[in-house]
Amino acid sequence: MVPLSEYQRRLSSVRSQMQGHGVDTLLLSIGHDMPYLIGYHAMPLERLTMLVVPAKGELTLIVPALEEPRVHHIPELFRVVPWNETVEPLDLVAGECSGASTIAVGDQMWSRFLVGLLSRLPNMSWTRANDVVSPARMVKGAAEIAALKSAAAAVDRIAARLQGGDIELVGRTEAEVSAELSRQLLAEGHEKVNFAIVAAGENAASPHHHPGGRIIGRDEIVLCDFGGTMNGYCSDITRCVVTGAISSDVAAAWSVLQTAQEIGVRAGVVGVACEEVDRATRAVIAEAGYGEYFVHRTGHGIGMEEHEDPYMVEGSRVPLAAGHAYSVEPGIYVPGKWGMRLEDIVVATEQGPLRLNEACHDLVSVAA
Amino acid sequence: MVPLSEYQRRLSSVRSQMQGHGVDTLLLSIGHDMPYLIGYHAMPLERLTMLVVPAKGELTLIVPALEEPRVHHIPELFRVVPWNETVEPLDLVAGECSGASTIAVGDQMWSRFLVGLLSRLPNMSWTRANDVVSPARMVKGAAEIAALKSAAAAVDRIAARLQGGDIELVGRTEAEVSAELSRQLLAEGHEKVNFAIVAAGENAASPHHHPGGRIIGRDEIVLCDFGGTMNGYCSDITRCVVTGAISSDVAAAWSVLQTAQEIGVRAGVVGVACEEVDRATRAVIAEAGYGEYFVHRTGHGIGMEEHEDPYMVEGSRVPLAAGHAYSVEPGIYVPGKWGMRLEDIVVATEQGPLRLNEACHDLVSVAA
Repeated sequence: MVPLSEYQRRLSSVRSQMQGHGVDTLLLSIGHDMPYLIGYHAMPLERLTMLVVPAKGELTLIVPALEEPRVHHIPELFRVVPWNETVEPLDLVAGECSGASTIAVGDQMWSRFLVGLLSRLPNMSWTRANDVVSPARMVKGAAEIAALKSAAAAVDRIAARLQGGDIELVGRTEAEVSAELSRQLLAEGHEKVNFAIVAAGENAASPHHHPGGRIIGRDEIVLCDFGGTMNGYCSDITRCVVTGAISSDVAAAWSVLQTAQEIGVRAGVVGVACEEVDRATRAVIAEAGYGEYFVHRTGHGIGMEEHEDPYMVEGSRVPLAAGHAYSVEPGIYVPGKWGMRLEDIVVATEQGPLRLNEACHDLVSVAA
Repeated sequence: MVPLSEYQRRLSSVRSQMQGHGVDTLLLSIGHDMPYLIGYHAMPLERLTMLVVPAKGELTLIVPALEEPRVHHIPELFRVVPWNETVEPLDLVAGECSGASTIAVGDQMWSRFLVGLLSRLPNMSWTRANDVVSPARMVKGAAEIAALKSAAAAVDRIAARLQGGDIELVGRTEAEVSAELSRQLLAEGHEKVNFAIVAAGENAASPHHHPGGRIIGRDEIVLCDFGGTMNGYCSDITRCVVTGAISSDVAAAWSVLQTAQEIGVRAGVVGVACEEVDRATRAVIAEAGYGEYFVHRTGHGIGMEEHEDPYMVEGSRVPLAAGHAYSVEPGIYVPGKWGMRLEDIVVATEQGPLRLNEACHDLVSVAA
């Protein structure tokens, strides 16, 4: 449970950003900004739930009447306005926005609601809530880091079983192994599976491969990238194993990848721009001649959401601050042949980067 | 697999609606309109995927380069434009929209993308894609109805086990029973669990209750509302059981509810306005004196999405057409005491309403 004082601290931080960005009203719906501020998750359905955060004064949660019993009321923080089935809730939202000239809307709010507001609030200036909420959300407090650590330890245990040969691979489909990883995520205490990518052989060259009916064979690389949400915070880890003999080209590439990942982790020093972490991993991979095969950014922030600010990508000048949590996950993908990725979650601290995942970083050969 | 000719038929139907609504360009991202038109599901993440559907000419799928290998290419239907990590994909989207004056955007598109387009395409008129896609999506073809039937049969088997006492209730928490229903949804062939509401005793008075640590006791009503996605189409069923003796007030209310649901199903005649289905169930419940306890609409459309058009709600003048699939799920909720709901999926046909769920409609007492 987040104490009221912490919610109040977050709100105050967000309001100071609103002032800096000239935002009069903040509108939040599905996504994680609303739970960050008041602890309530909107249902991702067509009935509107909206938290209205004015620059000053009371917060208002507009919620379907049939979902009001789900709300944990915190009267010191927000009031609740339930709406019945035959009411148009966008009219209620628009009413709460009178007097505003700039409104920031939640990143993941469904566009149907924003389209409905565009016509109700003409001449309004619209911006992203992310600009004003993310600066606070990026900096994790001690309880948040502890939650990320527990989630990381949970997926480390699964990775250890994978590397120990305790998860059967050869003869099973990618989809079957994905389902087993999903079950293990839940068994290890996650309340929700976010993804369980399993990609074998040439399929591993597709970074976001959708696990399918391909049967895993001997002497193949198997890329496993899995994570979920545990006590409200996300895990995310990638490890690769080989079902038998490791070919020399794969071994050589892994050695480069492992070095790149290690150097990327070490680059995460407070004050450094996020793009420098990306440059650090990319330089190692490019230097070794695999540059064209590293087709994505080095990492993403992580917290209540599986991907959130800050991003480790060329062009991001955001300076790393103590409490920023993010992935370092370079990859090498050779189309038609194989792919590999190595991923840990890291927290920037004043004492240097703190790596949360401790599962073995080698390319392990498991009995075929 | 949907044949190319069917995709072409759908596109043609949507374009005819675009013409009728004065929509120049359709922009689709996450949600089910894109898979309905081209078979591809965008990943629900921060990297933009967007299908651009102009009134005439070629469709363009703008997709992150690292996700391009996920796309099943259908060159006769759309071209693919991959974007690399350091490109701003909204500029690509805006470029595809030159010349448009009215753009319809997908209901579930993240608002961050729409906000980004508002500044890039000033003076544009914005509307909902739902207006032009939903008329086609609402009318299910034979293959779609077959898929809904299979999914309904799968949850019927789970409901039968619940009613047969084969799912342990007393002494377990709501959350444990919810997890078991989720496992059974997957075991019965669903690829995805959408929800598994389990609400015991007074918790059943919260229609969208989040299953928690409350332990189920004897002689209590247990409301179970569960469904998932199977071969791309959704199931959704609600049944209630009592763990022991059924009190007379609960039995009396169930009798009213069962009659209301039956009359609601029968009201689903082709040509009738959707609101008439709602009125039919509501009249029975109000007549019996429970009107104030029926706090939600009677039902929602169902198909690729768990909730979609048409909605069985007061104010909906949409006439039922053959092929419309929807839920009929009246409920009675007495705060602090108990709640109950009874739900089937129904397809409107020229021969009258076809009920897809056949699990027993009684309030069954299961051994405590």
